[in-house]
Amino acid sequence: MAKADADAASPLFDKVALIGIGLIGSSLSHAIRRKGLAPTISGSARSAETRETAQRLGLVDEVFDNAAAACQDADLVVLCSPVGTFAAIAQEIGPVLKNGAIITDVGSVKTAVINDVAPYLPAGAHFIPGHPIAGSEVSGPESGFAELFDDRWCILTPTDKTDPEALSKLVHFWEQCGARVDLMDATHHDLVLAVTSHIPHLIAYNIVGTASDLEAVTESEVVKYSAGGFRDFTRIAASDPTMWRDVFLNNRDAVLEVLGRFSEDLAALQRAIRWGDGDMLFDLFTRTRDIRRNIIDAGQETPVPDFGRRGPGKVDD
Amino acid sequence: MAKADADAASPLFDKVALIGIGLIGSSLSHAIRRKGLAPTISGSARSAETRETAQRLGLVDEVFDNAAAACQDADLVVLCSPVGTFAAIAQEIGPVLKNGAIITDVGSVKTAVINDVAPYLPAGAHFIPGHPIAGSEVSGPESGFAELFDDRWCILTPTDKTDPEALSKLVHFWEQCGARVDLMDATHHDLVLAVTSHIPHLIAYNIVGTASDLEAVTESEVVKYSAGGFRDFTRIAASDPTMWRDVFLNNRDAVLEVLGRFSEDLAALQRAIRWGDGDMLFDLFTRTRDIRRNIIDAGQETPVPDFGRRGPGKVDD
Repeated sequence: MAKADADAASPLFDKVALIGIGLIGSSLSHAIRRKGLAPTISGSARSAETRETAQRLGLVDEVFDNAAAACQDADLVVLCSPVGTFAAIAQEIGPVLKNGAIITDVGSVKTAVINDVAPYLPAGAHFIPGHPIAGSEVSGPESGFAELFDDRWCILTPTDKTDPEALSKLVHFWEQCGARVDLMDATHHDLVLAVTSHIPHLIAYNIVGTASDLEAVTESEVVKYSAGGFRDFTRIAASDPTMWRDVFLNNRDAVLEVLGRFSEDLAALQRAIRWGDGDMLFDLFTRTRDIRRNIIDAGQETPVPDFGRRGPGKVDD
Repeated sequence: MAKADADAASPLFDKVALIGIGLIGSSLSHAIRRKGLAPTISGSARSAETRETAQRLGLVDEVFDNAAAACQDADLVVLCSPVGTFAAIAQEIGPVLKNGAIITDVGSVKTAVINDVAPYLPAGAHFIPGHPIAGSEVSGPESGFAELFDDRWCILTPTDKTDPEALSKLVHFWEQCGARVDLMDATHHDLVLAVTSHIPHLIAYNIVGTASDLEAVTESEVVKYSAGGFRDFTRIAASDPTMWRDVFLNNRDAVLEVLGRFSEDLAALQRAIRWGDGDMLFDLFTRTRDIRRNIIDAGQETPVPDFGRRGPGKVDD
């Protein structure tokens, strides 16, 4: 955990504004404090409870019920609320943004966000969309922790009009938060994330719904025997409903494209089961084994069996 | 971990035969040794490497390349190989089974297993099909551990012809291995497990296959950005290919039934995304959240966010 050392870097920004203080916003606060990346963190949250918690935990130095107030004099503004809120927030903060301020976000879709945010920002602001590939099934300001971004990828989607100095500063910021940074075209980002994140969430939500609706199997049976595989899906299907509704509404084309392929492939598996084509099943099941090894080798997954839930190194009792 | 205490129970059987020594067979050996449930464990495995490993690790007191030899004089025979092998094994061991011996199995399907095994067993043997709901993505004799069954459910599917004394003895055996035991009708078992285990595995295998086949997204991108949700599915999709091929071929009707419902529900979600029906998405995503809480409350899942992979109590670095 070299990244967790409290070796302070010099401040990169005088004031960072976190618009929305949930899992990502609160984790960013911890990561900023860990390295001293900004002396002042301001925040905004619509819920009084969130504002109270953020202050109690020291996540913010000042907190407001509106984004514009939090953005006053901020050098870096990070939109950390569900992407469906971004258009209204951009409209609200546009007039108060400091000249030269960097505006970024952490949303799981990028093309729709660019369309929603860019039109409202003043010419002197640098808008660089972003997306840290990190999170968990828990939400809220109390769930954040400084290590969330360590060794995770953060994708930024600048264009050829993006100011190089602002980009370089934002890349450095994310690296100091523990992440590795990749640059990508926004449209390609949306397709990649449809595969690695959005469709997995959709089918997890779907299987949990299907299981709940079966008349012949009780919910208590589903719960009792979930260790057979089902419970893994319930983790993802416990993710924040508002955030995920907004993701699907805002990445429609890429999600529908990948979903079409998923359903086609599933129909072929269904046919193989119906007609007893064991070779087709065996071939797929063998091919899919390697990809986990690659993910572990890339440092994106624990090598411990069963996520370390049981057995040596277990965490569940 | 009260179950892990080495408080020996008196032996329940003089000799237990484990037919197949993979994750489940080796874990059973550890669980039997932990409580002294049988002075002698014999085993059989088709692969010389598995037999060598089983002996080296002390999993078995004697090991053979054929099931019949391992079953000589055994009081309890546990079939721990893929269910597609059971018919041939039953045919082989039928003539050598000790009078009064209990024969059980750990297969994920029960109706097909009963059809495959029962016809070959002599009248003096007690056949009681079984299924411990426990496992992981790793396979082989080195992956087993004594705690695998602790607080997991083991389903037995006796009929009204099953000898009550033999049943009681097998229930006690599984309880001493750490499991909680439920009795169930074989057909109902196959439907419940289609929901809680077989369909989750099928769609995990399928999404990993779909992701690998996308021309516009490279496998290296899938690997890098897998922390968005995809990597969870790769754990299940790394499960043993032979075991899972046999499960799908042998639980065809229940799998096709649940898969049909899953696909119907997914089509409805697809339509909601296409037409921007945010309320429908939000309602489902809210409803699915509760079931994870129930699974955690039932002791079938770790309460730690992200399976404990990251954050406080993390296991991945």
